[in-house]
Amino acid sequence: MKRRDFFRKGVFASLGATALGTGSAFARHTEDAFRKTAKNVIFLVSDGMSTGTLNMADVLLKQKEGRRSRWVGSYQGNIMKRSLMETASSNSVVTDSAAAGSSWGGGMRVPNGSLNIGPNGEEPIPILQKFKAAGKSVGCVTSVQIAHATPAAFCVNEKSRNAMPVIAETYLKLRFDVMFGGGDELFNGSKRADKKDLYKDYRAAGFTVARNREELLKVQGKGPVLGVFSEGGLPYAIDRENDPEIKKVTPSMAEMVKKAIEILSQNPNGFAMQIEGGKVDWAAHGNDAPALLYDQIDFDEAVGIALDFAARDGETLVIMTTDHGNANPGLFDGGVKGKFGTLFTATRSNEWILKQLNGDNTPDQVIDLINAYQGITIKPEEAIALLKNYQVVNDEGLYDTGKIPLKLLSEIQMPYTGIGWAGTGHSSDHVELGMFGPGSENLPAFIENYKLHNFMLNAAHVPAMAYAW
Amino acid sequence: MKRRDFFRKGVFASLGATALGTGSAFARHTEDAFRKTAKNVIFLVSDGMSTGTLNMADVLLKQKEGRRSRWVGSYQGNIMKRSLMETASSNSVVTDSAAAGSSWGGGMRVPNGSLNIGPNGEEPIPILQKFKAAGKSVGCVTSVQIAHATPAAFCVNEKSRNAMPVIAETYLKLRFDVMFGGGDELFNGSKRADKKDLYKDYRAAGFTVARNREELLKVQGKGPVLGVFSEGGLPYAIDRENDPEIKKVTPSMAEMVKKAIEILSQNPNGFAMQIEGGKVDWAAHGNDAPALLYDQIDFDEAVGIALDFAARDGETLVIMTTDHGNANPGLFDGGVKGKFGTLFTATRSNEWILKQLNGDNTPDQVIDLINAYQGITIKPEEAIALLKNYQVVNDEGLYDTGKIPLKLLSEIQMPYTGIGWAGTGHSSDHVELGMFGPGSENLPAFIENYKLHNFMLNAAHVPAMAYAW
Repeated sequence: MKRRDFFRKGVFASLGATALGTGSAFARHTEDAFRKTAKNVIFLVSDGMSTGTLNMADVLLKQKEGRRSRWVGSYQGNIMKRSLMETASSNSVVTDSAAAGSSWGGGMRVPNGSLNIGPNGEEPIPILQKFKAAGKSVGCVTSVQIAHATPAAFCVNEKSRNAMPVIAETYLKLRFDVMFGGGDELFNGSKRADKKDLYKDYRAAGFTVARNREELLKVQGKGPVLGVFSEGGLPYAIDRENDPEIKKVTPSMAEMVKKAIEILSQNPNGFAMQIEGGKVDWAAHGNDAPALLYDQIDFDEAVGIALDFAARDGETLVIMTTDHGNANPGLFDGGVKGKFGTLFTATRSNEWILKQLNGDNTPDQVIDLINAYQGITIKPEEAIALLKNYQVVNDEGLYDTGKIPLKLLSEIQMPYTGIGWAGTGHSSDHVELGMFGPGSENLPAFIENYKLHNFMLNAAHVPAMAYAW
Repeated sequence: MKRRDFFRKGVFASLGATALGTGSAFARHTEDAFRKTAKNVIFLVSDGMSTGTLNMADVLLKQKEGRRSRWVGSYQGNIMKRSLMETASSNSVVTDSAAAGSSWGGGMRVPNGSLNIGPNGEEPIPILQKFKAAGKSVGCVTSVQIAHATPAAFCVNEKSRNAMPVIAETYLKLRFDVMFGGGDELFNGSKRADKKDLYKDYRAAGFTVARNREELLKVQGKGPVLGVFSEGGLPYAIDRENDPEIKKVTPSMAEMVKKAIEILSQNPNGFAMQIEGGKVDWAAHGNDAPALLYDQIDFDEAVGIALDFAARDGETLVIMTTDHGNANPGLFDGGVKGKFGTLFTATRSNEWILKQLNGDNTPDQVIDLINAYQGITIKPEEAIALLKNYQVVNDEGLYDTGKIPLKLLSEIQMPYTGIGWAGTGHSSDHVELGMFGPGSENLPAFIENYKLHNFMLNAAHVPAMAYAW
């Protein structure tokens, strides 16, 4: 095999521990390539990924499949750059996703909840608008609503992240080339408060609209394409992969990202995109270990696709990071295939389990259900405790199934899985950031989140912000 | 000021965010310096430091003192190298300190609890013995017993880490140049089971023995010096700094490290040393936030001393890392000087607080004590819950004050401080590693713990291990 062919197959796909040391031909090849401009920028966010989330996914893959995660595996050898990123917002050391995404998207820190509206009313131009103006194709892929905080922070200025129905309309005006995620309720006339049929409007404006996996895979051409694959967020990867009916209609992160790159890369001027593993954050809020680990792995496949593309392409800057910690989970039991091994064969999220139950179930039914889908046999008193949390009756006289006892289930599971959680919200942690491609040579070992805005623009030789305010 | 003078004052001491970017004169100066052999190696271990511990100490210093920690601050600019380190032992993804220290010390993974005795009985030569044989001065500094797992793993082969009284004797035979820490019970004839007066033996063999801060500061010459400053581990930094009597007799990490470098650096062939913030791990096990943060900061001062020395010296490799995560704490409340602000003015550890109490106290006494030393006013029912945990009577008919309710107090404190904990033990987290100096240019972005053994030897041009087994 010629070197060129080997390289085309993807430096990362072929990467062994020592294949790409400092002195190797490929490392030199890669170094030379990095003196160039970043024609393309791929920004990957595993939302709310604490250190333990990145690590447990890697440990799981190593123990279950004998391989490292694509993310951690890419750090072998000397071709990736890393930085520790400070995640604060303008009004808190604990950021939310809107302010964190805005720091990257607009280049300044804003208050929690805000999308590129600064503390003094500043309205920095969102980064994908800048890349679009520079002639590039642009887009977003996420596992939550496409108008959710993190993708929206690369696209719009909006006082509140809650204005998702408005943001769905703004996206039409922006006419970005790829927008894939969930959020049917934001586009469907029968679900919107104002009854507007945005799908019709998008189609009338020349968008291809894909509503399921099959329609997505069929898309051809260079966009624009709107893909909306669920109401709310997409199902958790573990629930999708183990239910053929859901799997048939729901694309994985990897499928969405592959199609997005296929569309965006047709522009000779290049592209810029954000990819968000949004449900990693939701799973962390719910202390839902099966959901968390398999959504992180689902996201990790997208990391692999981005890195492989960048390695072949040679002109693509890949950034992989998170916006903040969430719940700071950890694996506190070390037996190989011991307690942690229950996660290797689990087939449903905690959320799915709890949504099958209500206060009328017997403790045995609870025990059997969890055993069947997660391989754990909880005690009768634990089953009874779970059922008690379904006794709460809401205003309409119905069981409030929205408030499923996620935290209680995670506490019950701890002795069986070895996984512990420090909270159910975001943490102030400085976070992991990995980078590959042209421009990465300038990455410092520590970086404040908002500095990534100009960093990306500089790497792509697109005019950076002047900080006029 | 001449460049040379500026540099001598310490590149790190003078480091602003942009002072040492890739292109600066100092960066080039530093880069040139790094082509050399590492004459000296300083290996710093904040034991059991989860990501959140490193980060919260940095956030605390930034909010309280307007400066970054020396560790995180050193990452500004492009002079530090970083790696993500895998921490597993030979029999678990969750290591203990003995196996983790042995991976570095002996270059192979061993079972938890073992000090450089491999799974098949291998006995790799501990790294400080190798450096000593190469003509360098060697030593260890720790805030726990000097014969505790982490320092011992750089020095001895021992089946069990529990053999501390034996290890204290082995140290005498090894005749290392500096051994500073706690553990009077291991040397004091009136406390040892065999009644051996090891202090006497050490003195007879030509050691200077320092038993308190004053004696330490007076030490001159190039060793050997044994410093034992407490029974068990040293007091927590927060308890030391706020009690003049303890402070008078107990050196800080910085004071111990400064003196150690002063002694060791007199050897023209260079030196190698390990510095352990051992009580960071103890505080994490106890979910003791005030103890954890101020011991991390105490350790951080030693990081600064090591980096400043290395920057002046130009021939010193500095490695700063941890052996494993512990408890994975996080700050989940973001208000500047809000809940977290209670930590800025706290003056005692949770351990100290709880040791003042017993079951005979009134709830009001509990509330007043915590308020006086930590600025938190807990509720009467919380005070009552704490007191209940002193009702347990042990075999001798006495309150079992060894089992103070540390975990319960941390749970009570959570709403007041915003700090949460995911467990009370070690986690499988991959961990932070920062590196500066000659050899650091070869650090990969991901490294298995045991590979650091040969890494250090290679950097110092001391023969590396052949992995004969």
